[in-house]
Amino acid sequence: MTRRAPATLVKVSTEHERVARIRQIFTRPSDAVVLGIGDDCAVLAASPLPQLWTVDAAVEGVHFSRTFMREDEIAYRALMAAASDIAAMGGTARAALCALALPAGFDEHAFDALLGGFAAAADELGFPIVGGNLARARELSLTSTVLGECRGKLLTRSMARPGDGVFVTGPVGGAALGLAALRQARAGHPRRQRLEPAVTRFLRPRARLDLAPALAAIASAAIDISDGLFQDLTHICQASQVSAVVELSRLPRLCDFEQLARALGQDPTQLLLGGGEDYELLFTALPADVPPALANQIGRIEAGAACVRVLSEAGSELSPVQGFDHFR
Amino acid sequence: MTRRAPATLVKVSTEHERVARIRQIFTRPSDAVVLGIGDDCAVLAASPLPQLWTVDAAVEGVHFSRTFMREDEIAYRALMAAASDIAAMGGTARAALCALALPAGFDEHAFDALLGGFAAAADELGFPIVGGNLARARELSLTSTVLGECRGKLLTRSMARPGDGVFVTGPVGGAALGLAALRQARAGHPRRQRLEPAVTRFLRPRARLDLAPALAAIASAAIDISDGLFQDLTHICQASQVSAVVELSRLPRLCDFEQLARALGQDPTQLLLGGGEDYELLFTALPADVPPALANQIGRIEAGAACVRVLSEAGSELSPVQGFDHFR
Repeated sequence: MTRRAPATLVKVSTEHERVARIRQIFTRPSDAVVLGIGDDCAVLAASPLPQLWTVDAAVEGVHFSRTFMREDEIAYRALMAAASDIAAMGGTARAALCALALPAGFDEHAFDALLGGFAAAADELGFPIVGGNLARARELSLTSTVLGECRGKLLTRSMARPGDGVFVTGPVGGAALGLAALRQARAGHPRRQRLEPAVTRFLRPRARLDLAPALAAIASAAIDISDGLFQDLTHICQASQVSAVVELSRLPRLCDFEQLARALGQDPTQLLLGGGEDYELLFTALPADVPPALANQIGRIEAGAACVRVLSEAGSELSPVQGFDHFR
Repeated sequence: MTRRAPATLVKVSTEHERVARIRQIFTRPSDAVVLGIGDDCAVLAASPLPQLWTVDAAVEGVHFSRTFMREDEIAYRALMAAASDIAAMGGTARAALCALALPAGFDEHAFDALLGGFAAAADELGFPIVGGNLARARELSLTSTVLGECRGKLLTRSMARPGDGVFVTGPVGGAALGLAALRQARAGHPRRQRLEPAVTRFLRPRARLDLAPALAAIASAAIDISDGLFQDLTHICQASQVSAVVELSRLPRLCDFEQLARALGQDPTQLLLGGGEDYELLFTALPADVPPALANQIGRIEAGAACVRVLSEAGSELSPVQGFDHFR
C-alpha cells in the first residue's frame, strides 16, 4: 500500500472550483434522482416504500487520523459507516449527501481524494451522491447522511426474543487489529504482510447491504457493529429487554488473529469483544431460519434485563469489556 | 434579551444521559414518522411525492459565535437555515436529523439549550426531529439535514426567463445589521432599542415554508437568501443563463435601516446587497402572476449571460458587491 508523500506545494481551490470538482467526481447516474448537485436541495423520485434515514460524522483526531490514513480512505470509511446503518435496518440505500468541513488552506489534491473516497464507497454500494455541503472549520470533519428504503420487514433493535440465536455476518475485531497495526507502522515498526487483511478491514470496511434483504426476512433484531460486539449486543438487549449469552470461541475472526494481536501487544479478547468499526451485522433469529452460509451463530438470547454475558472457551464467565473508544 | 451568565460550574453528561435528554426534548408527534430516535435509522412513512433533501453545517467561529449568541439561538438558526432550502424549492418539510459535534467537557445546560433551539425551530415550522448523531470534536458544530416533499411544481434555480420580474418575500440586510449590532454590543457599546428588529432577524430567522406552496404555483425560479441578495441572484442567473437588473430603491428593508446602519459604521448598500442569512425567498415570476401582498418586485430578468446589475436611486449602475462572508 502506498502512502501519499507529504505535500510540498499546497494548492487551494476556490469554492467555485471545488463545486466544479464535486460535479465532475460525483456522476453516478440513478433512476432515483430527479435533481442532483447544484440547487438548493437534491430531489429524489417518489417511492412507495418507507424511507430509512441516517446521519453519521467522522471527525479528525476522534474517528480518523491523517497521520496514517489517506484522504480517500477517510472518506470511504465515513460513507460506509453511514450506509451501514441502512443495512442494519434491513434496507436498501438510495442516495447520500456528503458534507465536508475543511480547514482554511486545505490542499486541492487532498480535497479531490476525499471526493474520490466518497465516490468509491457509493459506487461499491451502488447508489449516487446527490449533494452535500462545504463549510470552513478549524478541523477536518465529514458528515454523511444516507437515505434508503425498506422493501421487506423493518429490522429494529427491539424485537429480539428468548429462544433466538445471536449471529454475526463476518469476522469481528479485525478493524481494531488493523488500526493497531497502522499505529505501530506509524511509530516506525515495519508492518507484517500477514496484517494486511486486518488493515484492509479497517481502511476498506464494507457495509453489508448485500445481506440486508436476506436478513430482513429471517432476523428478529439487528444492529451493525460500530461500537464493538459487546456494546452493540448490549444495545439490542436494552432495546429488546432481553439478555444474551455469547461464547467467545464461536466468534469468527481473521486467520492467526490471536497470534497477530499479541505480536502487536493487543489483548485478542478485548479486540474481539470491544473492537468496533467492523460494520458486520449482528442479529438475532431463530437458529433454524439462518442458513449456515449467511452468518455464524455466536450465542443465544435469554429472558432477563439487558445483560450480556460472555463465556470463555473453558465455559467461565468473562467480566464486561469496554466498547471501542476511537482515538481516545 | 437576557444573555446566559458564564457558567461557573460545568456539569458534563455521559453519552447515555445525553441520549435520554434528546428523547425527552425531541418529542413532537408526526404521522410521517414510523420510527424515531433510538435505532440505527429513523424511518419515515412512504410518500407519493418527490422527496427534497438538504444538509447544512454551522461551525463555531465561522457561522456563529458563542460570545454573543446563546446555544438555543445557535441551534435555532442552524435548523432554520437547512429548512430554508426546502422552502427555496417550493417544498414542505417532513422531518430533520440534527447532528452535533461537541468539544470535550461540553456543559450539560448548554447541551440542553442546543436541543431546545433545534426543537423550537422544528416546532415553529411544524415538523419532527427524528434522529441525529453525537460526535466528539475540538470545535462545536451543528449539521442539520432536512427531508421534505414537493406537492406542486419543483422550484429550481434554472428556469428564470427574460420578461420575468425579480421578487423578494421580505426585508433584506436586516440579519447582517443585527449581527453588526450584536458585535458592537459585545464590544461594550449599549444596544439601542431600535436595533431589536434587526437583532431578531439575525437570531430568529424564519424559513419561509409558509410561502413556498404559493410560490411553487407562480414562480419560474427561486433561491433562499443565505449568501446575500446579490450573490444569490447571481446563482439564479448562472443556473438560468440569464441576466438581472435590480433597483436598489425597491429593496424592502427594516424601518430606519440606513440611519441605523450608519450609526453602527456600516454601509447600508453593502448590507442590503451583500448581507446574508435573512432566509427570505428570492424568486422570479411573471409580474402579473404575483399578488402584491406576497412579495416585492425589485427588478427584472433580461437576456444575457449571468450578469447582475444594480441601479442606484439616481439610476446609475453600482459596482459589484461581495457576498456575505460570515465571520471572516
